Amino acid sequence: MTSATVHCPVVTEREQFLVNFFRDVWNAGDADACATYLAPAYTIHHDPGDAWAGQTLDVAGFQQRLQRSRAPFPDQTFEIRGLFEAQGSVVVTWDWHGTHHGDLPGFPATGKALTMSGITEYRFTDGRLSGHWQVVDRLTLFQQLQAQRSTATA
Amino acid sequence: MTSATVHCPVVTEREQFLVNFFRDVWNAGDADACATYLAPAYTIHHDPGDAWAGQTLDVAGFQQRLQRSRAPFPDQTFEIRGLFEAQGSVVVTWDWHGTHHGDLPGFPATGKALTMSGITEYRFTDGRLSGHWQVVDRLTLFQQLQAQRSTATA
Repeated sequence: MTSATVHCPVVTEREQFLVNFFRDVWNAGDADACATYLAPAYTIHHDPGDAWAGQTLDVAGFQQRLQRSRAPFPDQTFEIRGLFEAQGSVVVTWDWHGTHHGDLPGFPATGKALTMSGITEYRFTDGRLSGHWQVVDRLTLFQQLQAQRSTATA
Repeated sequence: MTSATVHCPVVTEREQFLVNFFRDVWNAGDADACATYLAPAYTIHHDPGDAWAGQTLDVAGFQQRLQRSRAPFPDQTFEIRGLFEAQGSVVVTWDWHGTHHGDLPGFPATGKALTMSGITEYRFTDGRLSGHWQVVDRLTLFQQLQAQRSTATA
């Protein structure tokens, strides 16, 4: 991850581990790298709107989630705003940018730039990621998609 | 705040301070208590959809924000799921419950129960709260309000 996409001090080993995870997995889309970062079982404890919310995934399941999540936005970038390690977790505050290159349900691809933000609490087991509790500002994304559809059909 | 509304260990003094702030200010709606918890200047650094996003408020300004925010949901309760103190901040993960007793723009009061969740990073100056960076799952709330309107007009 470049300095351009981390806007806070990286203080602890687990925070650096998460910076690398975002760089390799969510930003670069390297599915093979999942095996480096993930525990054998990864639980999506809370993530409203995520298709896998409530599920526990193995590495192959997480790779499917990664590929399906990134498909509409192949150039997506997470910018890390803050890193907070406590109670065995690392909380990440982030902004997200992506170009709408693939279809979403009800929203065909437009090629337009989109942005949103979120906060994720990552949990660890034996030094690897074993789950998260996340809230994403989905309404901002939904409103951008609706505005694009209105423009397209006007 | 009762044990029923804090679902995690409270480890540090600042975490206890925040538990008390939620209990007195956001749950009980005690505007006078703001002076106990807030620094002279409180900045809403990031809070998509909040009417005061980007602004810096004095205590009186925060009291107005509190009263306007709670008016539609006078029985609102925040349940604290996690507390994470690091880098001088405390991050709080939370669920929210409220009954829709007052009108919102476009959504007249229905008396129905609503729920949502969010995560807030609270910042401190001289031991008091001086701002936050927050993401709320507003789409969940929006969808509940829309579903109620559909029912009301069916």
